[in-house]
Amino acid sequence: MHKSRLAGFIIDCRADDLEDAARFWSAALGYPVRPLEEESAPQKYRELLTQPHGLHIEVQKVDHESRVHLDIETDDIEAEVKRLEGLGAKRVAQGLRWWIMEAPTGQRFCDVRPQKPDFAERANTWE
Amino acid sequence: MHKSRLAGFIIDCRADDLEDAARFWSAALGYPVRPLEEESAPQKYRELLTQPHGLHIEVQKVDHESRVHLDIETDDIEAEVKRLEGLGAKRVAQGLRWWIMEAPTGQRFCDVRPQKPDFAERANTWE
Repeated sequence: MHKSRLAGFIIDCRADDLEDAARFWSAALGYPVRPLEEESAPQKYRELLTQPHGLHIEVQKVDHESRVHLDIETDDIEAEVKRLEGLGAKRVAQGLRWWIMEAPTGQRFCDVRPQKPDFAERANTWE
Repeated sequence: MHKSRLAGFIIDCRADDLEDAARFWSAALGYPVRPLEEESAPQKYRELLTQPHGLHIEVQKVDHESRVHLDIETDDIEAEVKRLEGLGAKRVAQGLRWWIMEAPTGQRFCDVRPQKPDFAERANTWE
């Protein structure tokens, strides 16, 4: 038995300047950009701050074409990947703590660890 | 003065069978597909039922490559399109009741009319 649900989405931007990209999406969607910690390392990601229990949204600097990809959060990545394979998805590549998958309809998406504090309470449970 | 906010996203699927595509995304994300009305016309869209105040999510059958695109809902499409142009976005094509836009970071997204009952109460107000 494990749990999963839609965590949110990542706005993948093939852009020279991550700050510019984050600024556009922040203003377009009306969510502030999470301030960086002092002395933080150069970032590949900037998070947009949605309301409590809102989506997890990040702007990511990428080398591939710009797109939007969905993230599914789960407390058991291997079990969730197997569940999604059973539905017709395929494994594409394994990251440090996530799997990149491809849907039978062609979109890439990621299986990631729980992103938000209300995950355990509100995620779907799969037998 | 007008309002806008992120309404949700559309999962654009270049797929032969919209029902198959909707079934996959329904099961993957854990949201039921909204049942069709009786005698409804053939559909290009199937809606996924998220919790109250959740995102507006649809699976759409398309001819272009599969992707995910964001929808911004607004009570004044022309004013919102102008606001987004001011941020660097471009108009791509006008639909019946929406504009297809392109972000400066390359993604297509749509400006649409309000999709959800809590729009007026919770959307961002732009001067």
